[in-house]
Amino acid sequence: MTSLPSLPVLADDDSMLSRKFGREVANYFSGSPLNRVSFLRGEHDFLNKAFAHPSASFLLMNGLSPLGKGRSTLAYVGRDAVLPLIGPEPFKQTEAEQIRNFNSTVDKPVILFLGLDEKNKGFSFKEHSGNPYFAVDVTPRGTFTEQANGVIQTVEKDGIAFITGGRHMNLSAPEAAIYAQARALFDWNARNPFCGGCGQKTMSVNAGTKRVCPPTDLAGVSEGAEPTTRAECPTRAGVSNLSFPRTDPTVIMAVVSADGSKLLLGRQSRWPPSMFSTLAGFLEPGESIEEAVRREVWEESGVRVGRVVIHSSQPWPYPANLMIGAVGQALPDGEKIDLGNDPELEKAKWFTFDEVREGLRNGIAGLDEPAPSTLKEGGIRLPPHTAIANRLIDAVINGFLTLTPKI
Amino acid sequence: MTSLPSLPVLADDDSMLSRKFGREVANYFSGSPLNRVSFLRGEHDFLNKAFAHPSASFLLMNGLSPLGKGRSTLAYVGRDAVLPLIGPEPFKQTEAEQIRNFNSTVDKPVILFLGLDEKNKGFSFKEHSGNPYFAVDVTPRGTFTEQANGVIQTVEKDGIAFITGGRHMNLSAPEAAIYAQARALFDWNARNPFCGGCGQKTMSVNAGTKRVCPPTDLAGVSEGAEPTTRAECPTRAGVSNLSFPRTDPTVIMAVVSADGSKLLLGRQSRWPPSMFSTLAGFLEPGESIEEAVRREVWEESGVRVGRVVIHSSQPWPYPANLMIGAVGQALPDGEKIDLGNDPELEKAKWFTFDEVREGLRNGIAGLDEPAPSTLKEGGIRLPPHTAIANRLIDAVINGFLTLTPKI
Repeated sequence: MTSLPSLPVLADDDSMLSRKFGREVANYFSGSPLNRVSFLRGEHDFLNKAFAHPSASFLLMNGLSPLGKGRSTLAYVGRDAVLPLIGPEPFKQTEAEQIRNFNSTVDKPVILFLGLDEKNKGFSFKEHSGNPYFAVDVTPRGTFTEQANGVIQTVEKDGIAFITGGRHMNLSAPEAAIYAQARALFDWNARNPFCGGCGQKTMSVNAGTKRVCPPTDLAGVSEGAEPTTRAECPTRAGVSNLSFPRTDPTVIMAVVSADGSKLLLGRQSRWPPSMFSTLAGFLEPGESIEEAVRREVWEESGVRVGRVVIHSSQPWPYPANLMIGAVGQALPDGEKIDLGNDPELEKAKWFTFDEVREGLRNGIAGLDEPAPSTLKEGGIRLPPHTAIANRLIDAVINGFLTLTPKI
Repeated sequence: MTSLPSLPVLADDDSMLSRKFGREVANYFSGSPLNRVSFLRGEHDFLNKAFAHPSASFLLMNGLSPLGKGRSTLAYVGRDAVLPLIGPEPFKQTEAEQIRNFNSTVDKPVILFLGLDEKNKGFSFKEHSGNPYFAVDVTPRGTFTEQANGVIQTVEKDGIAFITGGRHMNLSAPEAAIYAQARALFDWNARNPFCGGCGQKTMSVNAGTKRVCPPTDLAGVSEGAEPTTRAECPTRAGVSNLSFPRTDPTVIMAVVSADGSKLLLGRQSRWPPSMFSTLAGFLEPGESIEEAVRREVWEESGVRVGRVVIHSSQPWPYPANLMIGAVGQALPDGEKIDLGNDPELEKAKWFTFDEVREGLRNGIAGLDEPAPSTLKEGGIRLPPHTAIANRLIDAVINGFLTLTPKI
């Protein structure tokens, strides 16, 4: 059996309500040990002090690969290791000053403030305390290529390297959550160097969680002269979500037959042989979660779903999804499988709970892993515990449908 | 009491499971009567035939204001009314041909295919049938300003006009869902005329649900000559979500005290006097729904939440949110209110269920409506039934916390 990374578990308190609500499911990539104190990201006095504090840790990523000790532990570095790339006081200027000094010909690495580890209160600011965590995107690029390469060469040493390939699902759950936060934000920043509203270059602010389209540019302006005014941009006025990171809500669902005895699973042609999983798809504008579940199941398998219950959620940083896990129930006359709508699946099939139970017991493996040696002839492969698909399947097979309310 | 638009209710089937799962909550702006058949949006043979069919209905929007009869009913027009703007065969070319013929100096109105109304099967394509619904953004703009103004003048007549102002929450639930889908997609297209990856102009494809960054441009090219090759763009290779509509997951939560006897509500300073509502905020990259609920409640009110249960969801097209409604329970030692973190709220307060019940009975009004005449001295105003905030508050006050499992 594949080893299960330790998942964060909420302390169960003893009040009547918590017993009634049942146990919350915390999926892999959630459960960050950091307090994001998101309201402090624009306060450069805070960022400055947190950055300068000896307890500050820095996660470096090169092309979205995190620095690690081996493949299963993140390796943090101290501030000194990144100074050649970002300088000693990257938050010295206020955000307004940084925007005024924007120069579209100078590239700058994205620096994220991830949060405070409140279990270790080495650093304090007003009423908040905890060791600060930052992340720096050291991918060599544009005008800082040389400095980034220098940092990369310095930090890689015996057993410490940027972990390339795969989805980094060997990390412990708390580290996976920190990695997910950093990866999602670096990726979003890297994908959005230009403004969707006007096509001009944007810059990262708010400790890496926002991009603004500056009104002026120092490109080609001589020292001390006034910056050039840029073309107008609709994002500079009024409310706009253009400059915030995107997270795409995605539905993923374990669909049971009307009598609750069978489970609907599907497979894509590019998957390894005998691999099956739950159906999934993007929620669209103007849809509720339940509607998206019913639409996606019908489009991909022809099965018509009635009741939908939300089970749990999982942040999925490949690149920017929120997986919303649900259990759906087919309508009594809607169980017929028809792949003729959306050709996304190669196969969709109703499995008995016994077949699925056998898969959970002997067929668990990641997409990029070899078939488990325990997999029986004719048996199915299922996704690992770190995937919400596994948690949904497991929930349905192991009691979610019984009379005891699980949520 | 404010009138409640009729909400779509799922047929309750009689299986054991559906009784156990309880009743699904369908919020306003969800419950579209249309089948989106999303997999047909790229098939121009289908779009062509649906567009040409006499049963096709067209919803027009001018600056996001829909054409309506009065303020509470959408007014659809036939194809002939929009031909001067979009021509008789807007889907005649395949999508690949349209991309090859991209000309960045020619503006085109966005045309959405919304779906098929399967209750009225006037039109058929392969195994799918239903009256087709389209929407056209007739906002005068760029090279089609004159034609758009012409269409606008033709369609406005006695009692038929573009409904400006407000949130169109007098529409019936099915019409509100159609409006939400169209508004969200028009708004996204309008906000993203340029590519975030390279800064060049993009074009709407896939019946308005996708924008691509074309590799070539006919701008300035003489008739019959080859198009110019544009600068490279990272979105043209590999997986990218840049060119899909964005929907921002947002958490909104009714927080009860540890003993389940009080409800936490807050107010923003710009709201009308005595108006309160549930707390809410954007989910961030790398967060589960439950984590986002706990973070937002703590940041905005200082209250620390333990257990979180998801209640229902609501598409919210202002501009592009998925409201994920939850009920949270404060930790026994976490009930102290502290507004010193995120200064978003002017006030947060624990209310007894009796105070909230009185508000639900006599204090319901929208943000842009006057205070209800029934509002008592010292009583609170609460949001209307069309808002998920109201549904969450109502659920908590009316039995969600009792031993009968509601979900």
